[in-house]
Amino acid sequence: MNGFACKSSTTANDFAFSGLHNPGNTGNPFGSAITPVTVAQIPALNTLGISMVRIDYAPWGVVVPHYHPRATEIITVIEGSLEVGFVTSNPDNRLISKTLQKGDVFVFPVGLVHYQRNIGNMNAVTISGLNSQNPGVITIGNAVFDSKPDISTDILAKAFQVNKNIVQQIKGKF
Amino acid sequence: MNGFACKSSTTANDFAFSGLHNPGNTGNPFGSAITPVTVAQIPALNTLGISMVRIDYAPWGVVVPHYHPRATEIITVIEGSLEVGFVTSNPDNRLISKTLQKGDVFVFPVGLVHYQRNIGNMNAVTISGLNSQNPGVITIGNAVFDSKPDISTDILAKAFQVNKNIVQQIKGKF
Amino acid sequence: MNGFACKSSTTANDFAFSGLHNPGNTGNPFGSAITPVTVAQIPALNTLGISMVRIDYAPWGVVVPHYHPRATEIITVIEGSLEVGFVTSNPDNRLISKTLQKGDVFVFPVGLVHYQRNIGNMNAVTISGLNSQNPGVITIGNAVFDSKPDISTDILAKAFQVNKNIVQQIKGKF
Amino acid sequence: MNGFACKSSTTANDFAFSGLHNPGNTGNPFGSAITPVTVAQIPALNTLGISMVRIDYAPWGVVVPHYHPRATEIITVIEGSLEVGFVTSNPDNRLISKTLQKGDVFVFPVGLVHYQRNIGNMNAVTISGLNSQNPGVITIGNAVFDSKPDISTDILAKAFQVNKNIVQQIKGKF
Amino acid sequence: MNGFACKSSTTANDFAFSGLHNPGNTGNPFGSAITPVTVAQIPALNTLGISMVRIDYAPWGVVVPHYHPRATEIITVIEGSLEVGFVTSNPDNRLISKTLQKGDVFVFPVGLVHYQRNIGNMNAVTISGLNSQNPGVITIGNAVFDSKPDISTDILAKAFQVNKNIVQQIKGKF
Amino acid sequence: MNGFACKSSTTANDFAFSGLHNPGNTGNPFGSAITPVTVAQIPALNTLGISMVRIDYAPWGVVVPHYHPRATEIITVIEGSLEVGFVTSNPDNRLISKTLQKGDVFVFPVGLVHYQRNIGNMNAVTISGLNSQNPGVITIGNAVFDSKPDISTDILAKAFQVNKNIVQQIKGKF
Repeated sequence: MNGFACKSSTTANDFAFSGLHNPGNTGNPFGSAITPVTVAQIPALNTLGISMVRIDYAPWGVVVPHYHPRATEIITVIEGSLEVGFVTSNPDNRLISKTLQKGDVFVFPVGLVHYQRNIGNMNAVTISGLNSQNPGVITIGNAVFDSKPDISTDILAKAFQVNKNIVQQIKGKF
Repeated sequence: MNGFACKSSTTANDFAFSGLHNPGNTGNPFGSAITPVTVAQIPALNTLGISMVRIDYAPWGVVVPHYHPRATEIITVIEGSLEVGFVTSNPDNRLISKTLQKGDVFVFPVGLVHYQRNIGNMNAVTISGLNSQNPGVITIGNAVFDSKPDISTDILAKAFQVNKNIVQQIKGKF
Repeated sequence: MNGFACKSSTTANDFAFSGLHNPGNTGNPFGSAITPVTVAQIPALNTLGISMVRIDYAPWGVVVPHYHPRATEIITVIEGSLEVGFVTSNPDNRLISKTLQKGDVFVFPVGLVHYQRNIGNMNAVTISGLNSQNPGVITIGNAVFDSKPDISTDILAKAFQVNKNIVQQIKGKF
Repeated sequence: MNGFACKSSTTANDFAFSGLHNPGNTGNPFGSAITPVTVAQIPALNTLGISMVRIDYAPWGVVVPHYHPRATEIITVIEGSLEVGFVTSNPDNRLISKTLQKGDVFVFPVGLVHYQRNIGNMNAVTISGLNSQNPGVITIGNAVFDSKPDISTDILAKAFQVNKNIVQQIKGKF
Repeated sequence: MNGFACKSSTTANDFAFSGLHNPGNTGNPFGSAITPVTVAQIPALNTLGISMVRIDYAPWGVVVPHYHPRATEIITVIEGSLEVGFVTSNPDNRLISKTLQKGDVFVFPVGLVHYQRNIGNMNAVTISGLNSQNPGVITIGNAVFDSKPDISTDILAKAFQVNKNIVQQIKGKF
Repeated sequence: MNGFACKSSTTANDFAFSGLHNPGNTGNPFGSAITPVTVAQIPALNTLGISMVRIDYAPWGVVVPHYHPRATEIITVIEGSLEVGFVTSNPDNRLISKTLQKGDVFVFPVGLVHYQRNIGNMNAVTISGLNSQNPGVITIGNAVFDSKPDISTDILAKAFQVNKNIVQQIKGKF
């Protein structure tokens, strides 16, 4: 696709991945598990501009606020009920959120912060398509409070308008 | 996204669609049903470059050879077993095909002819992501034998290297 | 063009090709001959996004239905008279066709199935520009009935709504 | 640039903006002021893919962590000394930071969280170029703790691994 | 192609142009005539990214140095012999030139200054493809010495390192 | 950014450049000096699509007519007063020019010929952003009168509608 044809020794397995029906392990503080199918899992996706992801949510499990710098995400609920939302750019910072039931579809536009939360007492499952073979993920909490090395406490204190003790406390949790 | 910010009166419903859990009606000659979620169903997808589709397959149902001029498709099997395949460009015309089980994922590169077939005695269901809000569909049989008006019989006779009676016969079926 | 300048040892011959005035050999079942000038003939075309092709048509010769997954084609008639046409996407499948005389220009939009046919008793010649250095060609007949390995006869029987004998017969001709 | 030429009644003023030499007002909690020159200030920038911004920093003033969903930023220090940094994607979350003096240039890649801080007792000034006429700004603090309406406290408590009181406290500051 | 399908009332004439076999009038100081087929002649070319041009050259006629800001050009000689050339970027400014005979093909990369000259005593004809529906033309002489209003004589005197009389003399010829 | 993540051994220095506060040496026939910060100075700019340039102008110094084949330029005056202008495409060749003072911002659209001239008795300084990591520069005088090898004198005589002596004289100055 880069000007010359792909090599002809490609086989069907180069275009395939197995196991997306298997639930991920949600036994973690967030109660969620992400199973990506990107160019890291299917090398033939390179240059093709698409990927897929399955997410499992324990009851009340959350995919915490994050964004994809290179992809819009379209998500559908396979099982359970979710609250989802994304926040628009400055200066509005509007939260566009919705409760989704099984069979509902929603869109997270490229580059915007979004989250998902299981709002029921049963497990939930979603399948998403993303329009990049390598969409990237920036998780807000990790980028801001858990970088290596970390961002200066006084910068974060100004950013969140709290005193430094609280910033230190949050950093300590990661 | 086209240079200026989107209007702020957008609501969550502009980004949503319901009903993708409902089986489509496979009572047709092909034994398959397609439920698209593109810019036609979610207007906010415009410029966002992604769409989703659910396909239902009756036992031995087929999605006949077709291609998407503007999208690569990534597909996963939710229920059942399928044979899928795509054909590479001239001069190789290699068929890259595979049997998929529940949880398997496969990729149909942009612009290449592909098909899916239920190879079991139970219904099958797939969910796909496509990297265009309006991927387009060219179904080979319809484009070639059922255009309005139709392509001259003698051109098609040359194309498929058969006599004109057979071309007429195929045209008559559409 | 990929970020850094091209190497300075490039010579004029890297940008050149000779022989496009020579008629191709139309002694084949289709009565047509294609002489491409793509990145395979002029390596310096890489990343430049353009190519050219000459086509010769014996009397009543045909370029059978095909499409270019990565290019729009603009064609002009140098000698003779041609019928040309392309078919729009689902669900319309409209045939947009026209008879072209010497000096006429026509456009085949990217990804759409099109064909050309000499409608006179003399040879015809066309020159086309295509907006990719590697436009790709998918010939419908070959992709569907002559892939290696071949697509199952019963899938094609469903696709063209004919019985399997006819599919077998068409496959046998390729 | 969108296919047809721009209208010929354009004048030089459509391509111009005045006042970028004027210091912005840094009398705010962050001690910084941003003067953008985007398509909102110069309408002729539309489709041209570039913009510029001046930033003033009071002593120890900060531009808090934020990102541009549609632009890479190249920044140079006109006056003063700054600490700048950006954080890479998951899973590394590396902080790439540097102290910049007058005449230093630095790059913030598209979509990554970054910040700037005046580390001296005098005012500082920077000029940046961004490769979009409408780069967009997502300020982490505002997107996460000050959206309208706000994101549920328990989602944020999970995201930052703190108790709900602290989330409430941060929300209250915005 | 902009997200939604084109309107279905399009007819074949919207994709066609006639008359490219007619010689242009070369009775001008340059001895050349350009017949473009761009989006101005075929409106349906909009968004399709391709155009075509015929050029006629009287004996020793010239297409003077110019460039296309939005297109690479691939050119073939239909009749006659031409000298063609393009100049690479700073700092090399290499002239890549070649004598072309009937049937030769050459490439002028996007944005580079190029020219063509008939080097025989008979008329010459070329056909080119360009990868934009609106490639644009900047003729060096006109842009520099014949703009409205004109560029200050002393700027041009510095640019060409000649005295102002010569600049005035050149301006007077346009 | 090309599909896979950048290597994690990148350091801050890979994203930095020093010295843009230093005046360039304007002791040359043009009275101007250009200090670029492109991918040649900051390798990490590769694929990021942005660069920056400082230009110094002696009193009445000129940046002679040139264009960037791959970038729009946004320029701001840090010190002094400048006349700037660009010329639109054929057939209009309109000169869009303006006198800029300190703090003024102006835009040179991609691919159009432009120039800058110090119109005061003091030094002037500008900073520009360009939306390519490798914008390229084509200086009209050098491309046309100083290529290696040079363009035939009679072609240039036709291009500028002067006799060959003048062309020879200009060539001799470069």
